[in-house]
Amino acid sequence: MLGEFDLINKFFKFATSSRSDVLLGIGDDCALLNIPDGQQLAITTDTLVSGTHFPENLDAASIGYKALSVNLSDLAAMGAEPACVTLCLTVPKIDTDWLSKFMQGFLELAKQYGVQLIGGDTTEGPLSISVQAYGFIPEGKALKRSRARVGDTVFVSGTLGDAGLALKENKEIKFSKSSLHFLMSRLNRPSPRIELGIALRFFNASAIDISDGLCKDLNHICEESKKGMTIHLQLIPLSSELKKYIRETGDWTLPLSAGDDYELAFTISPDLKDKFLRQTKELSIPVTEIGIVNEGKRVNVIDTDGLSLEIMDGYEHFKKK
Amino acid sequence: MLGEFDLINKFFKFATSSRSDVLLGIGDDCALLNIPDGQQLAITTDTLVSGTHFPENLDAASIGYKALSVNLSDLAAMGAEPACVTLCLTVPKIDTDWLSKFMQGFLELAKQYGVQLIGGDTTEGPLSISVQAYGFIPEGKALKRSRARVGDTVFVSGTLGDAGLALKENKEIKFSKSSLHFLMSRLNRPSPRIELGIALRFFNASAIDISDGLCKDLNHICEESKKGMTIHLQLIPLSSELKKYIRETGDWTLPLSAGDDYELAFTISPDLKDKFLRQTKELSIPVTEIGIVNEGKRVNVIDTDGLSLEIMDGYEHFKKK
Repeated sequence: MLGEFDLINKFFKFATSSRSDVLLGIGDDCALLNIPDGQQLAITTDTLVSGTHFPENLDAASIGYKALSVNLSDLAAMGAEPACVTLCLTVPKIDTDWLSKFMQGFLELAKQYGVQLIGGDTTEGPLSISVQAYGFIPEGKALKRSRARVGDTVFVSGTLGDAGLALKENKEIKFSKSSLHFLMSRLNRPSPRIELGIALRFFNASAIDISDGLCKDLNHICEESKKGMTIHLQLIPLSSELKKYIRETGDWTLPLSAGDDYELAFTISPDLKDKFLRQTKELSIPVTEIGIVNEGKRVNVIDTDGLSLEIMDGYEHFKKK
Repeated sequence: MLGEFDLINKFFKFATSSRSDVLLGIGDDCALLNIPDGQQLAITTDTLVSGTHFPENLDAASIGYKALSVNLSDLAAMGAEPACVTLCLTVPKIDTDWLSKFMQGFLELAKQYGVQLIGGDTTEGPLSISVQAYGFIPEGKALKRSRARVGDTVFVSGTLGDAGLALKENKEIKFSKSSLHFLMSRLNRPSPRIELGIALRFFNASAIDISDGLCKDLNHICEESKKGMTIHLQLIPLSSELKKYIRETGDWTLPLSAGDDYELAFTISPDLKDKFLRQTKELSIPVTEIGIVNEGKRVNVIDTDGLSLEIMDGYEHFKKK
């Protein structure tokens, strides 16, 4: 059996890339980080608990990927460039095969963004993963939730509701092989919108990542900005799978409140909109206008008949953050 | 029942102190931190799992205190000044009474060092707490494990083995009321040696906190410094409770390998020793010389008869880190 020290060396210390701003990584009491001049440090953390945030039988590589992804998504929503991460891993037992696959998924995404694993803790207990992600952001450029102004356009990236639809597989619906692959990848390997977050630094945007559902997350921007929003149902970007599902069921709850898609929702002032759209086109980042910021207090969703929907986003997401 | 949002506000957001270098605390996708000029950031994280790192019936305030303390101890071992923390709390259910007491213990220690809680995540699952602590340290002043030089004096702070002795209560031994209070406080509310860590910045020291046991932790300094050490058993500082226990049992394993005391072990070059001893006396920090760094590879313990002890520190601390 591998001891803690071998474990650290084999799976963590020598597996990660190394950055020049990390003065000391794994192997001392603390990691040491140099923050580049003119930059601030963005810090975020999210925990995934087995059976609550992912199914107990999910493959280890996807668990590793998702544990990092949901944290990088928070950096994206702040406009930060990912730099390094720490990993608190609680596992029922040391299963080197499982660990190896977990780290393979974790490091696949880490390498994509040049993220170094600088520390962590491995303990024994019921499976649970807490990741902390650290990113740099130029002074004053953070995409705070409090920045929405009346008249701003409300945007979202990608398509919404796919992760929620994936959860219905087998229970309620059968999908084609390719649809299933797409939806499962949306649920288990979400892509953090890092490039979009960085692009938004130059547009004085407010932003949030959609982890809890569009309406609930937009309401956080409303609360922090002390504004309201009008969103148009027919403008919400949907995958062909979700369009089909809504056509068949009339159920719009997935794109409005299912969450777990890790797209960004954000607001941009009207005078910067055209410039922003040109830039996202050049960068091939899919973004869609879905509404406007107003003097209200909360999100108001207008349905396809022009009527205001009552949104049941009151359900508190204690379990599935 | 309190929702996640109320929970955050009540127990976390409005309960913590606020620092000028924290630009954004709880309430956005990330926290934002300003690192003072000329300072580096030390980052550490430790997880406590119920039943593994503390008994399931331990009072909530002590759990909160210890979860923070073991992390601040890692900052101390690096010579860092604590600045802020994040908290990943996994609880079986929302028990506001438990949470309130947990945060009371956590914030009692946080306030003592002006530490701000800047973010975290609360999830549902088997009780487990991961804390991340962030501290500042002037460039080049970190107390790296790799700094021990031949001829350096090996020191430890406080007394060793008390936390290990506390674990024997009821099972093997009965203590007097005052001894029990002392030992339980050593086990459940360890004091991080922050002031000592900061003082050591000016003595070119190597350091580690004794979480896994004196020999095992000193061996980490040996490995990173590529040196050995000779330690004298009779020099190891002991509380009166531990002296009594050793007198009665002849068992020296507690101060050598029990761990969980969160004292510092460190090395200082001989020419700085007198200055250091004057300073710790002024600061009322108890430190004791226990040995010397040599050309070897590992820690060698000399017993009261002048014989070399074979140290069984091979036991791997996977469970009780």
